[in-house]
Amino acid sequence: MRNLRLILAYDGTGYSGWQLQPQRQTIQGVLEDRLGRILGETVRLAGAGRTDAGVHARGQVANFHTACRIPVDGLCRGLNARLPRQIRALRVDEVDEAFHARSDAVSKDYSYSLLVGDVLSPFDAPFVTEVRGSLDIEAMEDAAGRFGGRHDFTSFCASACRMENRTRTVTDSRMIGNGGRIVYRISANGFLHHMVRNIVGTLLLVGRGKLAADAIGSILAARDRRAAGPCAPPQGLVLERVFYGVESGRGEG
Amino acid sequence: MRNLRLILAYDGTGYSGWQLQPQRQTIQGVLEDRLGRILGETVRLAGAGRTDAGVHARGQVANFHTACRIPVDGLCRGLNARLPRQIRALRVDEVDEAFHARSDAVSKDYSYSLLVGDVLSPFDAPFVTEVRGSLDIEAMEDAAGRFGGRHDFTSFCASACRMENRTRTVTDSRMIGNGGRIVYRISANGFLHHMVRNIVGTLLLVGRGKLAADAIGSILAARDRRAAGPCAPPQGLVLERVFYGVESGRGEG
Repeated sequence: MRNLRLILAYDGTGYSGWQLQPQRQTIQGVLEDRLGRILGETVRLAGAGRTDAGVHARGQVANFHTACRIPVDGLCRGLNARLPRQIRALRVDEVDEAFHARSDAVSKDYSYSLLVGDVLSPFDAPFVTEVRGSLDIEAMEDAAGRFGGRHDFTSFCASACRMENRTRTVTDSRMIGNGGRIVYRISANGFLHHMVRNIVGTLLLVGRGKLAADAIGSILAARDRRAAGPCAPPQGLVLERVFYGVESGRGEG
Repeated sequence: MRNLRLILAYDGTGYSGWQLQPQRQTIQGVLEDRLGRILGETVRLAGAGRTDAGVHARGQVANFHTACRIPVDGLCRGLNARLPRQIRALRVDEVDEAFHARSDAVSKDYSYSLLVGDVLSPFDAPFVTEVRGSLDIEAMEDAAGRFGGRHDFTSFCASACRMENRTRTVTDSRMIGNGGRIVYRISANGFLHHMVRNIVGTLLLVGRGKLAADAIGSILAARDRRAAGPCAPPQGLVLERVFYGVESGRGEG
């Protein structure tokens, strides 16, 4: 059996997220269907990040096993010819048989784009969350930096989350402002359900002066979802890249 | 009566073009409906460029007359709050009562984006036309330059066109290549129906080696639609900007 790795980009608008669900259009579902038709066999993908409904990706990574000998470049072209324009395979590679896109991921980058008090271009509209009024960007930068390091993220995890270990290590967390366009970037060794969107929702409270930047520490310490801000909408969120250890290859956005 | 000018951007995907048509979703139709609801009166817009179905704009200009005293900034915000995300008013200004967005336009810029032999990002997909194989960019650059100047564009005008005077002056016409991404830019004092898309379809024949660059002159001289190449698809085309004489103000993209 060959193990094939896909690097994927998608516009998640109109899809019920990555993960396969009955009766729903999901990214995984569409990919498995098209791959299955090309290869003539049932394909089951493992994806690195289980992006939510409406969330996008520029560098999602997935893998699957196949007995088919089809060349990877031909598979990539054939797959793109059959996929809707919202989903693209950026590349397909044959990798070590032990590689697993989710279990082997050592780090992921997400970005969240906000537009503040400016007119949102229809060319960017599906990928940006519009914010009314004005924001205190300096306070948000201060607050963003406080997520760096190893923390229990229970306060920023969807209350339905059944994950027992909610400790994650954040290696980068910052706001980058450029006029009315603000991008929040976060890198971590793993993410809990809704974690980035709950962090952004909390940073927006800071930006609006409803929460002090130095409250982040006590919100983390509370380990209580009610201590943090609301969940920000999905459309600003993009899974940018997934990183792997040296042996397993490296995801590229 | 006040004369209000709108600078507009839109993603034309899913719309039946700019111009009002019964039973169709058009950009003009949606704008007139939302403006009418805000102002409580019937609004009739004049648009500078009658973009086709699936064609986009970054700097369309339109104007309308109203008795309403609503401040322009408030109207701009209220309009964007009611418009679908695919259509945005970038600004609204009160202009001279004689200004007419179409008749007063002295020049327009269009761009047409192509992606050649590379994977089209889903983030750009609605705004780019994908081309298979490879293209001779140098030959296309040469051919593009030959559209500059004053010509009868009958060969590049939709055969259904009933315009009598088909002479237009092209002040800029060039291909700009950047890796697999190629952008064709054209500026002229006016455009005939399908003119840019027919030019791009012809440039693609040149890029594929099916037509010599120096054939452009004889195609123009033929004044026959059948002499030129096919009409390129709408989604790569963007109305970038509209220019006006000094008295009437200047459209900004």
